Amino acid sequence: MQTPPLTLCTHDSEPYRRCRLCTTLQALSEKSMDFAVVPLDAAPDVYPGCRNYSDFAYFDDSPCVARSQYESSWEKLCVGRVQTPIQGPSDLKAVEAAAMYSLHIGMRTILIDPGVGHRLLKPLARLLNELMNRHKMSVWYVSPWDQWKSWNQLRFMCGHNPLLGVCPRLPLMSDTTSVGLNSMHGKTLPSICRYFGLPLPKGISAAGHDKLGDLWLSEPLRAVYAQQPFAKGHPHSALFPFLLRKVPLIVHKTCIDEFRGFAKSFELEKEEIFSIFRKTYPDANEDLVVTTAREYHDGTPLAPLRPLQENLENGVYEAFERDSVKYSAYQKAIAVALQEIRARKDFQKSGLNVAILGAGRGPLVTCMMEAAYKIGIKVDCVHIFEKNKWACRTLEKRFHHMSNEDCSRIHSPVIQHDFRKWKPDRTFDLAISELLGSFGCNEASPECLVDTLPEYLGKRGLSIPQRYTSYLAPVQAAKTHESLLQMSAKSKDPSVFERLHVVNLRDAHFLGKPVACFEFDHGKRQVEPHSDMHNEGCSKFCSLTFIATEEGVLHGFAGQFDCTLFGTEGISTVEGSRTAGLVSWFSTYLPLRNPMRIGKDDRVTVNLWRISKEGKLWYEWNIEEPHLTGISNSGGVHDFLDLS
Amino acid sequence: MQTPPLTLCTHDSEPYRRCRLCTTLQALSEKSMDFAVVPLDAAPDVYPGCRNYSDFAYFDDSPCVARSQYESSWEKLCVGRVQTPIQGPSDLKAVEAAAMYSLHIGMRTILIDPGVGHRLLKPLARLLNELMNRHKMSVWYVSPWDQWKSWNQLRFMCGHNPLLGVCPRLPLMSDTTSVGLNSMHGKTLPSICRYFGLPLPKGISAAGHDKLGDLWLSEPLRAVYAQQPFAKGHPHSALFPFLLRKVPLIVHKTCIDEFRGFAKSFELEKEEIFSIFRKTYPDANEDLVVTTAREYHDGTPLAPLRPLQENLENGVYEAFERDSVKYSAYQKAIAVALQEIRARKDFQKSGLNVAILGAGRGPLVTCMMEAAYKIGIKVDCVHIFEKNKWACRTLEKRFHHMSNEDCSRIHSPVIQHDFRKWKPDRTFDLAISELLGSFGCNEASPECLVDTLPEYLGKRGLSIPQRYTSYLAPVQAAKTHESLLQMSAKSKDPSVFERLHVVNLRDAHFLGKPVACFEFDHGKRQVEPHSDMHNEGCSKFCSLTFIATEEGVLHGFAGQFDCTLFGTEGISTVEGSRTAGLVSWFSTYLPLRNPMRIGKDDRVTVNLWRISKEGKLWYEWNIEEPHLTGISNSGGVHDFLDLS
Repeated sequence: MQTPPLTLCTHDSEPYRRCRLCTTLQALSEKSMDFAVVPLDAAPDVYPGCRNYSDFAYFDDSPCVARSQYESSWEKLCVGRVQTPIQGPSDLKAVEAAAMYSLHIGMRTILIDPGVGHRLLKPLARLLNELMNRHKMSVWYVSPWDQWKSWNQLRFMCGHNPLLGVCPRLPLMSDTTSVGLNSMHGKTLPSICRYFGLPLPKGISAAGHDKLGDLWLSEPLRAVYAQQPFAKGHPHSALFPFLLRKVPLIVHKTCIDEFRGFAKSFELEKEEIFSIFRKTYPDANEDLVVTTAREYHDGTPLAPLRPLQENLENGVYEAFERDSVKYSAYQKAIAVALQEIRARKDFQKSGLNVAILGAGRGPLVTCMMEAAYKIGIKVDCVHIFEKNKWACRTLEKRFHHMSNEDCSRIHSPVIQHDFRKWKPDRTFDLAISELLGSFGCNEASPECLVDTLPEYLGKRGLSIPQRYTSYLAPVQAAKTHESLLQMSAKSKDPSVFERLHVVNLRDAHFLGKPVACFEFDHGKRQVEPHSDMHNEGCSKFCSLTFIATEEGVLHGFAGQFDCTLFGTEGISTVEGSRTAGLVSWFSTYLPLRNPMRIGKDDRVTVNLWRISKEGKLWYEWNIEEPHLTGISNSGGVHDFLDLS
Repeated sequence: MQTPPLTLCTHDSEPYRRCRLCTTLQALSEKSMDFAVVPLDAAPDVYPGCRNYSDFAYFDDSPCVARSQYESSWEKLCVGRVQTPIQGPSDLKAVEAAAMYSLHIGMRTILIDPGVGHRLLKPLARLLNELMNRHKMSVWYVSPWDQWKSWNQLRFMCGHNPLLGVCPRLPLMSDTTSVGLNSMHGKTLPSICRYFGLPLPKGISAAGHDKLGDLWLSEPLRAVYAQQPFAKGHPHSALFPFLLRKVPLIVHKTCIDEFRGFAKSFELEKEEIFSIFRKTYPDANEDLVVTTAREYHDGTPLAPLRPLQENLENGVYEAFERDSVKYSAYQKAIAVALQEIRARKDFQKSGLNVAILGAGRGPLVTCMMEAAYKIGIKVDCVHIFEKNKWACRTLEKRFHHMSNEDCSRIHSPVIQHDFRKWKPDRTFDLAISELLGSFGCNEASPECLVDTLPEYLGKRGLSIPQRYTSYLAPVQAAKTHESLLQMSAKSKDPSVFERLHVVNLRDAHFLGKPVACFEFDHGKRQVEPHSDMHNEGCSKFCSLTFIATEEGVLHGFAGQFDCTLFGTEGISTVEGSRTAGLVSWFSTYLPLRNPMRIGKDDRVTVNLWRISKEGKLWYEWNIEEPHLTGISNSGGVHDFLDLS
């Protein structure tokens, strides 16, 4: 646990004098704060009613002072707060004037705290939209904690502009239960578990968990806005998830030291969190879980790995090998499978042959060896297949002459070959592979296995994994949508919305329960008896209907999977039944170009095609309800996996 | 009346022999047909069940023959008809095979007549979408006349792809009333009036009018598909609107001569139509109405004229001056105004002074002179203002020394000056202007007049026009949407959907009745007493709700206007009360990037801002119902009128 997770910034509501800006910036630097919120009541020429004329003189020349001292970055260190309370229509002119003045002095980010009711939302949206589109200003919108709907309307009217962010205002202390850090339960622990991608420990109930907090976490947050006064010594439980994610906190300057104290105690109490964590999930690689949660919590879309098309680098192998939960599950599954083989009547007749299909640097070989050793089974021969010739060098060094204590030496040829194209000269008792992508079947595991397994396994051999099923769930993922919009604008490529992405969706807001879509079963060896218009070979179709369990914005769909490795042993990335401590897979994300507003209990229907033909694999999708949309990634034009 | 309005093309369902393609192309050329629909049952390698193997041999070599004879354009002259009836899911593979074969021989357009029920629409949509997106093929979809809904679903699933067009199949004769051409009433005359942009003549009822026909007319039509057999001598009334618009007609080759006879009789009967036209609207410039209807019937968006920013060319002035209905209305209004002035007690005391504001080449000057002459009023002085110095040359020649027979010579200085910047040395009794755009206030008539009229008119002077109101109506305009998509793709400029366009929307399908939005009244001289957040000066806001009178697709909004020139004299372009024979203004079109499906009685709410500030005028809009959208043209970034 390194740096403190609390980033503070000051919000100074007093008018500044000429020297004040310098003092503030000095303070920022000394207290390692991110930025200061400074009042923007503007100079008299634009805001004639101002009674503090002399107090604002600094706007006219202090920028020069600041520039020399802070390397011309003072504008970036300051967010201009529009002071005008928006009570009537005429106040909008003052807002515009303040923003224009802010622009004039080079400060391109404004914070607006309108406390606006429904009546003024339209003209305010128009004005803010103009500021963003015409003047490229960034707008931080302060929303009351419980007025997500207004924020959502504003966001839609502003066309999901990436320049628009939100600062939810923490509810007043009386609105919510305040808890001490040393009683980690109720509203706090669920947030923490969510952050680490873990299920709740047994005996802890999520009742009373702050769902609004989850909703805000999925939004393009710029900061959390603290109410004033902020009662001493009793920090908000609502604040916890934001602290974990290092969302900046805007507090009044008079409260800064108080917050610093709070941050310190939060730091101290963290150990308590991890002791719960350790007790509950002894299998998990704690460091890895913590690192993953810290490094990938922001919903940024990543390009999926394509080990079939490209050779992975050594570092990538290494990173994935560290997932102790995954390989522990594999090891258990292998033990069960080996025991099943041993239980056969004719087991003694032939030697035990195992194939590792796509071995990488060999973690599954190790799993197999350890499983066999533990249950005392002699493995006669392990064929190790890997097409990446650089990885094969490592494999050869490690495994060419293996032994385990009981069984002495094992014959284990390393075959540098695409196992799909290799003609085996024998059949194997067990074939073990790990070809699953974030969506299960999206790295072409079915294409690699369906036709080859019969050749490798004959009629009796076993496959690990036995079976896997992909799942889809509708999600609100505003940050991911924002990232895709920025990506699209930067690359001038609108097709980012036609591609599958891999995203850590832990902060996304699930609008419905995941539903199963495609299942592939390598336990059954017979060919599927029928094919219809949709399903033929590895091509499949499903039309899924979700009933929204939450209100929200449909930005896209989370694709996840569960997998039966063998018997009852399995792994899952499916929301709600995720294997604790598993970190190898984030979710797949199927984006929508145009987000849709969803009410609770609304029907959401999506059609999804998995097309596998002409040496290519791709997915197409469209929405049928609530609004019919065009089919994305039609013909795999924008996104496909080359199977050759 | 020049070329025959009927374009025929043959649809040959018999298999071809080697020489057949040549014969067909020969026939196309001799009978001046547009294209031939040829069967695509493809060669045996892709469609093994074909019983006509030898008949299809021509596919393999005749392209060379055709190429030499028809300058390599034979592929463009042929549309491949997918013959496979789509009865079950497995037929889709045959469709794909046929399409791939078509592509192989270079024929990039296929006609598909699926007669598909709801069950197969999804996989068919996916397949067609793949053909268009991946292989850039054009698809002509034959839809049963009464199955617009299925077509609409298909179109949405294909993302409104401009490569997708529709060929509605004419209903069977028994489905609809067949009428002789010599009884122009019922279903036929309403279509014709609509084509010419005219209201129905009195005594003619539109009851029984084929609304489905109107709906199809608003679609991206490629052809009309005739049923077989097509009963002799009794052409469909449903066919009339398509004939007028020269939509190609696909008929079986055995019926071609029959249709030719029909076309001939249609040609002969046209005179009858025009005699009705002439009798009903004696004011209208018949040639102009006919030409306009013919040249601009296709819903193509045009850039609005901007006479305030740019000097119009001589030809443009001339074109607009030919609108006799418009200037006749002006002349009547001027007469009423002059009579009102003459009726004043103090009329004799001062001479009568008239100002023409923005005279162009002077049509309003002529109107004024003729009005004054007819009612016998002496006009003493006409000041003619025009900022375009080239137009002023014409004005000077024509009007510097004017006379009318009664009043002898009139002093009429031509003032080459922007009248907004000129300080008049006197007040005028009457100021006449024609600054209205297609949306009324969109060419900045209010900005030009509101502040200047008091200077020119003092307290008592009159203004023509007195008052104008813009109207908005939700429309289905698929062709216009298609054009905008193409425009956007061609220029790689997505902002075409953020701009106002001018379109002849006569084939658009109005989904609701036009509703008034902005009114400007130059009769009232006092300053508007209040301003609120939305309305200040010439900036205005309105939020309009329509109840859909029809089912359809909301592609955008038609902007129109009506104008009280003076007293009871006025002009209108508003759907349903359009001034007969008026051709100067098409509709304004406010596009939506993403069309929305609308059911009958659905609510459609649109917010529209007219922003006039900082020397610029622009409009912003967004939809609130059925789905909330972002504000278009925010800050006038994509479209504004420079007022300076």
